[in-house]
Amino acid sequence: MLENPNPQMPSKAIPDRAQNPFIATDSVIFHALKGKLYIPLLQLKHPPYQGMWKLIGGLISLDQSIESSVIQQIENKTNIQKQNFIIDQVYTFGEVNRDIEKHSISIVYLALTHQMWPLKNSQHDMTVKWFPITELPPLAYDHEKIIKFTIGRLQAKVRSSNIIQGLLPEEFTLTELQQVYETVLDKTIDKRNFRKKISSMNIVESLKKKKTGMQNRPAELYRFISKQIETIELFSRQ
Amino acid sequence: MLENPNPQMPSKAIPDRAQNPFIATDSVIFHALKGKLYIPLLQLKHPPYQGMWKLIGGLISLDQSIESSVIQQIENKTNIQKQNFIIDQVYTFGEVNRDIEKHSISIVYLALTHQMWPLKNSQHDMTVKWFPITELPPLAYDHEKIIKFTIGRLQAKVRSSNIIQGLLPEEFTLTELQQVYETVLDKTIDKRNFRKKISSMNIVESLKKKKTGMQNRPAELYRFISKQIETIELFSRQ
Repeated sequence: MLENPNPQMPSKAIPDRAQNPFIATDSVIFHALKGKLYIPLLQLKHPPYQGMWKLIGGLISLDQSIESSVIQQIENKTNIQKQNFIIDQVYTFGEVNRDIEKHSISIVYLALTHQMWPLKNSQHDMTVKWFPITELPPLAYDHEKIIKFTIGRLQAKVRSSNIIQGLLPEEFTLTELQQVYETVLDKTIDKRNFRKKISSMNIVESLKKKKTGMQNRPAELYRFISKQIETIELFSRQ
Repeated sequence: MLENPNPQMPSKAIPDRAQNPFIATDSVIFHALKGKLYIPLLQLKHPPYQGMWKLIGGLISLDQSIESSVIQQIENKTNIQKQNFIIDQVYTFGEVNRDIEKHSISIVYLALTHQMWPLKNSQHDMTVKWFPITELPPLAYDHEKIIKFTIGRLQAKVRSSNIIQGLLPEEFTLTELQQVYETVLDKTIDKRNFRKKISSMNIVESLKKKKTGMQNRPAELYRFISKQIETIELFSRQ
């Protein structure tokens, strides 16, 4: 324990930093492309997890809020800029042995982006790559568990909020919207039911213009009504 | 920065503990009594928050998981034993200035207990008291914000899971169950609608015996079917 600098106040415990775990963030950054969800992972260069892959994250520094740390880690390690992703807190993981080197607690965020950005691979000699969530490489720490948990939370959030907009461009057709829902929920959805549901949720609006330059006949373009991530009350609960 | 003990591995950063925030837990412990929700708070004895009140919590130590820290803080500071409460993670708060003394991140849990336990007031010269959530004293740090946020989460969780069982004894009547729902959701519920809803949720079962020794005529006793906290699928979503 550190020495108490003020013996006038003996009952106030002085926190012992060496007895307190490290605190970090990790982000599962999703992009949906052609029926698959992708996430970027970073390959570790040194023992004890050499060659294995991890989520984008790192320790929080003293001058950072949790969210500013999440954003900085994503910008620095993937080169995806903050105007191109949205983030949402998922859960905090803190089993004692989740990192065999040190007790480190991780606040996990999900991030959603609407484009498969090229990833920066030079800084700190890092290798960062996109992987489909169905074909993940060997993962360090408890990151496999974290990714599975976060996919479940993403599916729940997509059902109860308008957060799916993070996976879509500003303007999209209803067919594109349905494809992204199907990718996240990992199921096919009947087109008529989907359109009825989307209409009842009141989260998108028509732009009153058509998407052109495609093989198929031009389709109506839509956008999300609110840019804020909001819960959808799907029915009156009581 | 700490000195790198292994110059063979120059590219591996050695974490600098002094640049990493402290990590703590805080618990909002609820009990429902006669139409009111109560939580225990602890009064601070020293500046800068002298005389103000805070949630039950403290720093996580190196040998503790997050949950074991939450349980130990509750047992040590309130004397409520772990078999008498259930806990559930709510959210992690980490604004840089939430504690004016040091950057400290807090993982917030809600805890539910079925009895208004007498609170221990002696250890470390502490004052711990139950307060109705409608009559809270002046709160230190961001604890007023945390309490409001946690009440909202409790209401959402009560609607979508069987977590309300943490506020009830092992055996209870449907009238008692309805009163606890009304207390948490802060609204009156029509008796017939309530019984229909509870029946459709399939979370409680009759014990096939009556509660006796009351003024009113004996009422059927119930218990929760599952002791595990489980999400209720109230309707098929797609």
